[in-house]
Amino acid sequence: MIDGPMTAAALFHGTGRLFDAAFGGVSAVQSPWAILVEDGRVAWVGTSPQDAPRDAEPVDLGTALVTPGLVDSHTHPVFAGDRADEAASRHTGVAYSGGGILRTMRHTRAANDEELELLVERRLDAALAAGTTTVECKSGYGLSTAEELRALHLLGRVAARHPVRVVRTLLGAHAVPPEATSADAHVLTVCDEMIPAAAAGALATFVDVFCDRGFFTVAHVERIAAAAADHGLGLRLHADQLARTGAAEAGARLGAASVDHLEQLDAAGVDVLAASPTVATLLPAPAIVLRDTLPPARALLDAGATVALASDANAGTFSGWGAMPLVIGLGVTLLRMSAAEALTAATRGAAHALDLAGHAGTLAVGANADLVAWDAVHEGAFGLTLGRVTSRRVFVAGREVTPG
Amino acid sequence: MIDGPMTAAALFHGTGRLFDAAFGGVSAVQSPWAILVEDGRVAWVGTSPQDAPRDAEPVDLGTALVTPGLVDSHTHPVFAGDRADEAASRHTGVAYSGGGILRTMRHTRAANDEELELLVERRLDAALAAGTTTVECKSGYGLSTAEELRALHLLGRVAARHPVRVVRTLLGAHAVPPEATSADAHVLTVCDEMIPAAAAGALATFVDVFCDRGFFTVAHVERIAAAAADHGLGLRLHADQLARTGAAEAGARLGAASVDHLEQLDAAGVDVLAASPTVATLLPAPAIVLRDTLPPARALLDAGATVALASDANAGTFSGWGAMPLVIGLGVTLLRMSAAEALTAATRGAAHALDLAGHAGTLAVGANADLVAWDAVHEGAFGLTLGRVTSRRVFVAGREVTPG
Repeated sequence: MIDGPMTAAALFHGTGRLFDAAFGGVSAVQSPWAILVEDGRVAWVGTSPQDAPRDAEPVDLGTALVTPGLVDSHTHPVFAGDRADEAASRHTGVAYSGGGILRTMRHTRAANDEELELLVERRLDAALAAGTTTVECKSGYGLSTAEELRALHLLGRVAARHPVRVVRTLLGAHAVPPEATSADAHVLTVCDEMIPAAAAGALATFVDVFCDRGFFTVAHVERIAAAAADHGLGLRLHADQLARTGAAEAGARLGAASVDHLEQLDAAGVDVLAASPTVATLLPAPAIVLRDTLPPARALLDAGATVALASDANAGTFSGWGAMPLVIGLGVTLLRMSAAEALTAATRGAAHALDLAGHAGTLAVGANADLVAWDAVHEGAFGLTLGRVTSRRVFVAGREVTPG
Repeated sequence: MIDGPMTAAALFHGTGRLFDAAFGGVSAVQSPWAILVEDGRVAWVGTSPQDAPRDAEPVDLGTALVTPGLVDSHTHPVFAGDRADEAASRHTGVAYSGGGILRTMRHTRAANDEELELLVERRLDAALAAGTTTVECKSGYGLSTAEELRALHLLGRVAARHPVRVVRTLLGAHAVPPEATSADAHVLTVCDEMIPAAAAGALATFVDVFCDRGFFTVAHVERIAAAAADHGLGLRLHADQLARTGAAEAGARLGAASVDHLEQLDAAGVDVLAASPTVATLLPAPAIVLRDTLPPARALLDAGATVALASDANAGTFSGWGAMPLVIGLGVTLLRMSAAEALTAATRGAAHALDLAGHAGTLAVGANADLVAWDAVHEGAFGLTLGRVTSRRVFVAGREVTPG
């Protein structure tokens, strides 16, 4: 990795396309362009380095397409084990007994901290190599209080030494572990043990719930949301993936930052999300791995909802790390978004979903100077290559962190 | 690149899964496994290196999933220029005037040999890094006799120094160039100039025709097929992509090795291909980039047709290089193939499509010892990760050619 010095100031510039979702409206492209970075943040944006208000070390990004660092607002990186055999069974229509989240829970509980940290670190390396500079990371494969807190602590240790910005989410309510007597009892553990401990240790920003058929109910979400609010943690939900439970509306009503999945969302749900600040986060990769319905991306965009695209990289339903360029490609092709809409969803939209609007996913003045120069000249490349666009240079807070 | 010595003999072995489409039936998996390689070919296959009929240098591939090198039987790598802007326009529903194949023809004609060779070489590097050891490469962006022959010569020069096995195809009938007075006149040039020159110089194995609405007709295919046969060149077709022209049946009737695309194929066409030795080659990547119908993969497989999966990497409708793992992932998810069917289609099926059955895409005795150890333990990983499976070690003719 090129691990550049933290310079006091740098003047990035190029003659290619600078795509930034923040230049008014949905998106805008500027060419040529120049950005002054001071103390890791964007201090000025213009069309020529000559116009910059102050002198600074120049960084010429040539003719490359430049975007804000991508934001992946939904991942589950803390797990051990491999479930490719189970995926192969599912794809031949054969049920795999003993599979699912609890199989990964067993593998994860059996792994020591060192093994798990190495796995998480490699997954963040893959994200960074794919131009993704902010990644939401969930616990959720530990499921006991001790194991969930272990996952959050471990994420904190990796984040402290990794260039990627990590946003931590407690997903204690991912499944009911075998030692719990019921889903209700597990929700009590989440509310009375996990949330207070995560908040007291500043181990998470958000609490998430897998609200779906066979997992947790909207009533469970209400209890967990109340505990999260009591402890100053934000809310986000797995919503309306397997069945239409009304989780999307519950999320909007309870002030969730984001409701994620939405494969089963109907027109009424679209209207509720369009009228709410809650972000609609779409995850096309697991939708196709599960051969499921695709979420109503066009309807959400046309109704004016704020839409994010995220990978949902996880153990069982999509295990692709560093997949955000592919996810943008799937957004353009399968979800019928324009290149600008999909790239906006993977930057500004995803930052909104993490309560980081204005800080990440944009190169507006005041934002973190997280930017990527791509091996491409036009944002249409994400669709045309189905995400086989590689990052040429990656910067986080103005510092070069290009892998390789 | 690790460019190992050509050893007289090597004994590959592992305790993971060896997936080989050739172990009888559609596919089979063996674990543990051992393969004796002599003079670049598979000499013996068994379950333990101890059983090998002769001693040889051992190569331990551990617990990794091992497959034959992937075969990409449909690519267009000889071009310059970038059409990502055009893709972005198409994805917003705006027609791009002056785009298409002729735009790439202008860029390609304007590029010198050195530029074009470097582009082709990088594209083959990406294929090799993605475990793809045999690649069919078409001309088709030159369109004049001189430019088409230049492309085939150039492919020959790159192939001579690149580890990937290259199969060359003359695609003079890709579009009608501006200097031709009509499609009929261009077909005459293909038949009377290009095919004889390509055959005389041993510059191509196959001739291909873009038989579709707005391009070339079945009548044109018949003329070109006759010229190809006269000169000892094989036939393959772009068939039934944009409209149902009957090209698939024409290919079967004329003895084409493969008919490719087939998005518009109907039940009658499925039956014809199932009863013929012509391979049905499916290209899911451009189908989704064009937001088109998907080809009837399940119907073809269920009817007993030989199916291949290929990338169709090209300038305008899918520009992903090294995309075969993704294509297998799209086969499993969007085309509803099993992992074994998709991997078989990308190895044995694609080798059939190139008249290389028994030589490539298999590790049966007598085949070229082209094999890949993947960063995966089960072939289900191709679907579960949508192709984000990386090659750990790659061998061509028993020689290590691992990139990196």
